Amino acid sequence: MTAAESNALPSEPRSASSVDAWSSEFDVVVVGLGVAGGAAAIEARRAGASVLVLEQQTRGGGATANSEGTIYFGGGTRVQKANGFDDSLENMHAHVKGAAGPTADPEKVRLYCENSLDHFDFFLSCGVEFKDTYYEEKVIFPPTDDCLIYSGNEEAWPFSEDAAPVPRGHKPKWEGSAGTYLMERLIETLEKEGGEIRNEAKVETLVRDEASGRVVGVIATIGGEELAIRAKGGVILTTGGFVMNREMLARFAPHLLRCKYPIGSDGCDGSGIRMGMGVGGNAINMHEGLMTTPFFPPNSHISGLLVNAQGSRFVNEDCYHGRVTDAILTKADGRAFLIVDDALYDAEKQFVPYPMAAVEETLEELEAALEIPQGELVHTVEAYNAAAAKGEDPVFHKASKWVTPLDHPPYAALDLGVDNSVWAAFTLGGLDTKPTGEVLTVDGNVVPGLFAAGRASAGLTRSGRHYASGMSIGGGSFFGRMAGRTAAGAKPIGSE
Amino acid sequence: MTAAESNALPSEPRSASSVDAWSSEFDVVVVGLGVAGGAAAIEARRAGASVLVLEQQTRGGGATANSEGTIYFGGGTRVQKANGFDDSLENMHAHVKGAAGPTADPEKVRLYCENSLDHFDFFLSCGVEFKDTYYEEKVIFPPTDDCLIYSGNEEAWPFSEDAAPVPRGHKPKWEGSAGTYLMERLIETLEKEGGEIRNEAKVETLVRDEASGRVVGVIATIGGEELAIRAKGGVILTTGGFVMNREMLARFAPHLLRCKYPIGSDGCDGSGIRMGMGVGGNAINMHEGLMTTPFFPPNSHISGLLVNAQGSRFVNEDCYHGRVTDAILTKADGRAFLIVDDALYDAEKQFVPYPMAAVEETLEELEAALEIPQGELVHTVEAYNAAAAKGEDPVFHKASKWVTPLDHPPYAALDLGVDNSVWAAFTLGGLDTKPTGEVLTVDGNVVPGLFAAGRASAGLTRSGRHYASGMSIGGGSFFGRMAGRTAAGAKPIGSE
Repeated sequence: MTAAESNALPSEPRSASSVDAWSSEFDVVVVGLGVAGGAAAIEARRAGASVLVLEQQTRGGGATANSEGTIYFGGGTRVQKANGFDDSLENMHAHVKGAAGPTADPEKVRLYCENSLDHFDFFLSCGVEFKDTYYEEKVIFPPTDDCLIYSGNEEAWPFSEDAAPVPRGHKPKWEGSAGTYLMERLIETLEKEGGEIRNEAKVETLVRDEASGRVVGVIATIGGEELAIRAKGGVILTTGGFVMNREMLARFAPHLLRCKYPIGSDGCDGSGIRMGMGVGGNAINMHEGLMTTPFFPPNSHISGLLVNAQGSRFVNEDCYHGRVTDAILTKADGRAFLIVDDALYDAEKQFVPYPMAAVEETLEELEAALEIPQGELVHTVEAYNAAAAKGEDPVFHKASKWVTPLDHPPYAALDLGVDNSVWAAFTLGGLDTKPTGEVLTVDGNVVPGLFAAGRASAGLTRSGRHYASGMSIGGGSFFGRMAGRTAAGAKPIGSE
Repeated sequence: MTAAESNALPSEPRSASSVDAWSSEFDVVVVGLGVAGGAAAIEARRAGASVLVLEQQTRGGGATANSEGTIYFGGGTRVQKANGFDDSLENMHAHVKGAAGPTADPEKVRLYCENSLDHFDFFLSCGVEFKDTYYEEKVIFPPTDDCLIYSGNEEAWPFSEDAAPVPRGHKPKWEGSAGTYLMERLIETLEKEGGEIRNEAKVETLVRDEASGRVVGVIATIGGEELAIRAKGGVILTTGGFVMNREMLARFAPHLLRCKYPIGSDGCDGSGIRMGMGVGGNAINMHEGLMTTPFFPPNSHISGLLVNAQGSRFVNEDCYHGRVTDAILTKADGRAFLIVDDALYDAEKQFVPYPMAAVEETLEELEAALEIPQGELVHTVEAYNAAAAKGEDPVFHKASKWVTPLDHPPYAALDLGVDNSVWAAFTLGGLDTKPTGEVLTVDGNVVPGLFAAGRASAGLTRSGRHYASGMSIGGGSFFGRMAGRTAAGAKPIGSE
């Protein structure tokens, strides 16, 4: 199979010598205007570079605009302090080094934590507002314009043993999903500060100087016309992940094909990863993804019991929804039921609707209806209830605020299995980069002139089992800024 | 970091133009004399090619010589028929397509199954004998010179539902471990048929023609002297996996570092994978490995109950030991105990010794000693016993021959956790190849003149969760033969 026949293979670059004429020239050319691209462009501009951003959609925003806009900050932000949460850079680092996953780059983790307050200020400088409020309910994101939430596993065992739990998810001040608001502020800022943006500009080909191996520009298709655009300082690929590219999923992360709902934008087609691979960039962590079947809100469902096909629990239900979902696939072979009683079940507040597998007056009947081996579900619930009466969960250490006996019949089982329910996913693999955004070859050398950030790179977070909301936008924007500065010839953040 | 600083990075090739003089010239040069290299060399020789095999150790054998020598054959071999087992190519294929794992190459799986009887004959042609006997006990390998065993998950749920279970592990006729016997026959055959072997010949560098990109030879260090050896038809890398290379494990499969005992030979240092990467070969499946903590023999331990730290079972204990071990790590977070009673425990016949975590007169005391939440282990054993009295295991479908109540106190818990017990591993990632052994780039193009087989390639089997014993030697030798024929200019096996 050749590249022309597959959307899963590297995209061949074009030779600079074959370019008849450059249509325009910039210090830095950014491909893709999501949060990583916006942050990269703003930083490059602030460092004095001329900047062009090429966005394939009719307007910028990317996956971030389709998201809730939560950003993972810590170490004592203004919002954390206003709400009485005592965080430190050390405490943040103690959590994030676990949350980034076992294959994370320790240097990226360190830089991200050490510069978190600076990164918060960056968003302020772009006109992004954060309300000094804490939203106490456990949610995917606040439905209000409130800011601070526990967006990961900070309070959940065993993470709660690694660092003092504090909330670090910061949603911008906007009712409900704030991703579009966030991206509009970045785009406004970029335009105000003199960055140039071309929408409906599709880039599928890098231009490389054959002699030096340096990436010196891109071929962009704009209005049906192919334009060669020169980048003197570098090309920054911020094109997102590859969850919309089924051929790439089949090649690199086939388990994610089991999740019916891709999280991202149409642009998350892997095009930047493929372009980077075409000039020798090494794609790593490509088998990893974030999967989620968000069974809360309502918060009362966290007090339910998640059981496998054998009727046993296999994870504490108060973990981050992505961690619970990973456990359903890897520990429970993709089959799981959330057991609730009449006091806990709440159809109205469900974040996503779940198929009801069974409703029965007794646990014995529920167990039979679910074809769970006789006595197993009954034991699980009865043993849980006995300890729950004392507010304890000795088996999986669910925090006591979520622990309550299930003793209000009827009992219901929501089907959270991968084949029957709402499962969504995005990818966590991409181009290997230095913290500066420079793309690396498999030999560990830099591809001159090429940078990547956001989901087009293997960034801050590498594992869906450990992930927290806000780390993609946070990591994408932070390492986007690093790439923008480096491409513009400025020093990395934190090096002054 | 550069290649010179790391043993995890690609090895740079040398340019053919820099070679002053070739010390010798062969049609085919094979690097590494394990089963894949031996089979490749014999087939290339039989196709009329002149063949040199370079082996870095004092004698050939590789990981195969250190193994039990089991080969996975099926579809109705002489040994299967002599023992009344009715197998077919379709039935074999139905099992192997699952056993090779979800990321396997369907074409490799098909070819391996369709040509299994031919592959059996290949070993006969090399003087390898198989006794027409079946060894009924479930073992890692027969301690006798008997042949046929169930070497994988054929009889275990859920594999038993995909294909009619038959044994396909064929151990050559040799008391106990037959790997050395097997390799001696291959080496004898190769020498008798005119293949040349140089031991203590270390190859760390390929020679490439810069203009064509073709691999045209190797640099071998023999007796302290660097020799350039030309390969007209191709170089075949059969250097094994990378389980002995801790830097490669840390980079590609860090979880395997938790297994203290590498399975292989000193040569499994990843050198061939690194050389292939250095000329553009794409290394795939690098995060996968086979892990094992073989808790049987004795067979009576299969009748024990494997429980996690919560006191729940999580896998049927009659699975292949590699599958059980994978489940301990992925489903039980690396902590597990095998619960046996006085009737089942058998210290004498243990294949490997396990630490005894606790011995107690009652299940309640055992549970407490293991710090399992109160009542959970008691429930697991009592519920199991109630069904076992009828020969049933409704929870995990262990085959009834292994199902018996645990009711002979005292009760013991063997510690099978990754941090406390004998865990061994080898790698399942390597160079991407066509079924012909031709090495592929990340673009899906062939690296001209370069072949790989055995653990240096991503071969037949890709997943430790699905694996069966005999598939590494079987797949390595079969695709080694394919590579040998192709490099010698002959047609692939099965194409006549």
